[in-house]
Amino acid sequence: MACFSFITYASIYERHSHIHALASHHHSVVVAIAMEAEAAPLIQHLSLKLNPQFFSPKSPFLAYQGTHESCNLTVITNGKDAVHGTGVDNVGTIPAALATYLALEKLDAQEETKVDLLINAGTCGGFKAMGAEIGDVFLTTAVANHDRRIPIPGFTGYGIGKVNSTSVEKLAGEINAKLGVCTTGNSLDAHDVDHLHMGENEASVKDMEIAAIAWSCELHQTPHFGLKVVTDIVDGDRATQEEFMENLGTAAKSLQEALPKVIEYICGRSHDEL
Amino acid sequence: MACFSFITYASIYERHSHIHALASHHHSVVVAIAMEAEAAPLIQHLSLKLNPQFFSPKSPFLAYQGTHESCNLTVITNGKDAVHGTGVDNVGTIPAALATYLALEKLDAQEETKVDLLINAGTCGGFKAMGAEIGDVFLTTAVANHDRRIPIPGFTGYGIGKVNSTSVEKLAGEINAKLGVCTTGNSLDAHDVDHLHMGENEASVKDMEIAAIAWSCELHQTPHFGLKVVTDIVDGDRATQEEFMENLGTAAKSLQEALPKVIEYICGRSHDEL
Repeated sequence: MACFSFITYASIYERHSHIHALASHHHSVVVAIAMEAEAAPLIQHLSLKLNPQFFSPKSPFLAYQGTHESCNLTVITNGKDAVHGTGVDNVGTIPAALATYLALEKLDAQEETKVDLLINAGTCGGFKAMGAEIGDVFLTTAVANHDRRIPIPGFTGYGIGKVNSTSVEKLAGEINAKLGVCTTGNSLDAHDVDHLHMGENEASVKDMEIAAIAWSCELHQTPHFGLKVVTDIVDGDRATQEEFMENLGTAAKSLQEALPKVIEYICGRSHDEL
Repeated sequence: MACFSFITYASIYERHSHIHALASHHHSVVVAIAMEAEAAPLIQHLSLKLNPQFFSPKSPFLAYQGTHESCNLTVITNGKDAVHGTGVDNVGTIPAALATYLALEKLDAQEETKVDLLINAGTCGGFKAMGAEIGDVFLTTAVANHDRRIPIPGFTGYGIGKVNSTSVEKLAGEINAKLGVCTTGNSLDAHDVDHLHMGENEASVKDMEIAAIAWSCELHQTPHFGLKVVTDIVDGDRATQEEFMENLGTAAKSLQEALPKVIEYICGRSHDEL
């Protein structure tokens, strides 16, 4: 009987400390990155390995996995376009939402790989009116869409689709990042109507994926935030595509520096410490 | 030995006739419909039953299944928005692409349910310059996006994302439908830049889902086409949302009449006969 009690206490203790470990420290983190070139430095830095069995061969997506300190890391990218035969990276909301959904579905199926944080990392446009400059690193406070205009009662809010990010104020201080809303649309450029809606979203930065990624995260109750590096100024005088191509190198370098610091900071800490 | 030969011939014959049956007649058809109200008459007409195990409870999507003549039918809808708390139908490209991908992934996993045709049915805007009138039924010849502008070499074609539909000319004659390109965007309305790109796509009709659905179908090598009923005139004088609300009843009736005829026609026939 004494022995039985001992076993019971031991297993309760073990179970509690397991729950505590799960609740307090990040142990399974996904980093969703649209373009292969944006992801390559992180994959190399952390010596992550391609897992060709992770996604179905029907999908174009790629997953790289490895461990860092106490963390299991999965970097997912959207792969290349074979459907339209262009061979370019599958940018935009549709592949991003799908890759995120499939990754979370797979990892959440087992308790030991269940994802407790997803970071969407990549380049973005910045609004100088909100203090953004080329090369700046932004962490998101919220995300929303600016190109889903549905002027029917109820549908308007769905179209905008605003979602709050996990609070990461301490992390922003730690890596000297700015904080702000990221607004998402499927176009690299922006016209007058887009500018109106980006303004209404109170955006500091603009990308082509994060609102879709956040939607898939919300379906899985997975905490999420974005780490975005500014390649071009949306409310500036120059065409986005010119500036984007010119500053991609600088921004990629900022991303390359910031991302490992973020992983480092997160892997030893709980949500409350971000 | 004679017996062995007999068995061998019989099994070859059986296998060939099985392949022939698969190749010649549709036996597993998916109908993807964004809004619940658009799907309800078909579900009722064919006495399809909700299959609550079809999609993961993490997703908002719904699947209704049943048989019609020699066909296994699965009607999928995008469900209601719980993420943003609006409760409206999950319209637009992201839920449509995801629901389609997940349905094809599930059904294609088993040879006997492998999908050999997907139909995207729903309402659309019509271009009077291309001969479209309120209540018209259109079958798609191709689909493309008009709100994914990425002016970087290679990415432009990916953004437009044109995909040809399965040829359905005979079917169009049979049900008195018009044929044309459907252009997709995440907004119900359309501004000048959208009009420019819809024109470049040579669109007869405009919707909010089909190019995304076609992308998921292409990933699974599933033949697909759209059946679209016109609720409003895109190049007319009136605001889309006004006309849409006013004509939804008429268009829903056209859809309600056309869709069972299409199912009826398809289920006894091969791709070549469409």
